[in-house]
Amino acid sequence: MSRRRLSENLLLAKIGGLFESTGVRKPLRGITAHAGHVALGIGDDAALFRPSRGCETILTCDWFLEGMHFLRRNHPPDSVGWKCLARAISDVAAMGGAPRSFLLSLAIPENATGEWLDEFLRGLRRAAQHFDCVLAGGDTTKRNEILINVSVIGEVASGRALCRNSAKAGDLLYVSGRLGEAERGLRLFRRQKRGANSSAPQFQKHLYPEPRLALGQWLVKNRIATSAMDISDGLSSDLPRLCAASGVGARVDAAKLPVVMMPPADRSLRHTSGRKSLADDALSLALHGGDDYELLFTAPKSKELQIPPAFAGVAVTSIGEITANRKIFLVGTQTQPTILEPGGWDPFR
Amino acid sequence: MSRRRLSENLLLAKIGGLFESTGVRKPLRGITAHAGHVALGIGDDAALFRPSRGCETILTCDWFLEGMHFLRRNHPPDSVGWKCLARAISDVAAMGGAPRSFLLSLAIPENATGEWLDEFLRGLRRAAQHFDCVLAGGDTTKRNEILINVSVIGEVASGRALCRNSAKAGDLLYVSGRLGEAERGLRLFRRQKRGANSSAPQFQKHLYPEPRLALGQWLVKNRIATSAMDISDGLSSDLPRLCAASGVGARVDAAKLPVVMMPPADRSLRHTSGRKSLADDALSLALHGGDDYELLFTAPKSKELQIPPAFAGVAVTSIGEITANRKIFLVGTQTQPTILEPGGWDPFR
Repeated sequence: MSRRRLSENLLLAKIGGLFESTGVRKPLRGITAHAGHVALGIGDDAALFRPSRGCETILTCDWFLEGMHFLRRNHPPDSVGWKCLARAISDVAAMGGAPRSFLLSLAIPENATGEWLDEFLRGLRRAAQHFDCVLAGGDTTKRNEILINVSVIGEVASGRALCRNSAKAGDLLYVSGRLGEAERGLRLFRRQKRGANSSAPQFQKHLYPEPRLALGQWLVKNRIATSAMDISDGLSSDLPRLCAASGVGARVDAAKLPVVMMPPADRSLRHTSGRKSLADDALSLALHGGDDYELLFTAPKSKELQIPPAFAGVAVTSIGEITANRKIFLVGTQTQPTILEPGGWDPFR
Repeated sequence: MSRRRLSENLLLAKIGGLFESTGVRKPLRGITAHAGHVALGIGDDAALFRPSRGCETILTCDWFLEGMHFLRRNHPPDSVGWKCLARAISDVAAMGGAPRSFLLSLAIPENATGEWLDEFLRGLRRAAQHFDCVLAGGDTTKRNEILINVSVIGEVASGRALCRNSAKAGDLLYVSGRLGEAERGLRLFRRQKRGANSSAPQFQKHLYPEPRLALGQWLVKNRIATSAMDISDGLSSDLPRLCAASGVGARVDAAKLPVVMMPPADRSLRHTSGRKSLADDALSLALHGGDDYELLFTAPKSKELQIPPAFAGVAVTSIGEITANRKIFLVGTQTQPTILEPGGWDPFR
């Protein structure tokens, strides 16, 4: 940014310049291979998107705010750039769709427009390329804290999107990946000194989550799932949302949950304290840990054999069953089933 | 919200409940008359939008932040709700399109979730109904300040959107409405005591701006304009953007600008100080005042007679001409044309 006083035009030029190589164009008509859906990119009053025939457009937006979703002093700006887009794309994955383009709203202090912004944009660009999702436009302004809002536009074949409101009693309940892994990563990351090696494997799911796009699209293509959502606030908070939308309940088998263990040396980081075992702690992470961006979906028992134990390298695990009784029970931890209370992330709690 | 502790679910229910009567549905498939384009509304991972055949989708988003775009203590929450949507819709008007639906991202302190939120949502709903733009989804969280981001989805016939990059030397330059009226309203409003009558006519353009949708759509339908944008930061800041995108310059005739006068009693509020006249001050308001959301457009001289002096009750005024010389001159204030310097709103200035 040099000595020239930063202006909104310069900031836009910086963002636009970085993204040009990914196929986003200045307001010029015409189509490139990468940006086939974006007919008009950054620089005009609005962007123009060319929808595919036979598709519905998926619309979603997500806050990513300094102090709440990330800490400027601790989190690598590159990870902030990746994650703000990845978590919004996870909503597209949860609908079984493909991301196409996104809008970036960025409010930023002047002292973050140098190195911080460069690294942030690098992470964002890497995610945009990885997920084949083109920056189409946005809004920038100045603020004393870094505020990010990302809107993602995706597509899915008309009438085929995976919704939350169509789970049926008797359906089996599945999750992808391992639950609690991002929360575990966050706890381990918090213990690190600043500048710690953010590429260590145990931090990856916290810093660079991977929305389950391939799995969601496979579920749509093969008409496997009756309902789906992504787990962003923790299973104990998100499963009740799916059940409420569908007017059903669920029975979750604790023994089947794909848990992760805290390293034995890290008992101090355990979610539960006192005399509970490591296994209890892994269960608690799996039930209440947020930020996993795994898929939670339901499928009729008749489809059970079509669902592989892993898809595109990610485990797919049956964890229970949908019930007509609207309560949500956890079985396998006590002699009697216990009611599963929401214990995940809620900004107002 | 009563004594029950506010949760994200409750907040969503409040927003969703208010908007249900405008045609936004919970995650249920099916189409209603009002929400024909929104196949799936609030309550799922994402919203589903049904694009019209033969149309491109217009995408735009806008910040509306406490302390920068509005003051919680001074601005009626109803106006905040109206304006955060209206200004984003103005970008759709500038493309010549029709708004269809929007996403609301709201971060809000717990103490604003009662009366403030109710009135905010009332203003927002009134705008949504007025502009026929359906709330499709969003994201809510808690924050010590009120942060708003609105994404609007609109449509325009494919290949027909009004862009900034296609003005031609020799085109005539037009603006809608009166320039500086919102800035004048802001200054008069600032002098009011809190709780002043916000429905007074002189405040309307500041508090409840009206995007020029009908004019933009008329320009597209009749293939009148070669380029267009909306004036949000002031003519002196926005005209250079249009000229830069088109690789042209402009000559603006000061005598033709549709100005507004400050009331004579309000000389203390004048933009320029000292010995300048009220006319100078009106000119300064017209050149540099922001927030007008009027359309700035260009049209070939051959179309001059097709452009009426007013459209849908809003003046349409020829204010100058596009030139091959890339500079932007103001004529009629001095013996010699002077270069028009950007003096409008830039958050980083």
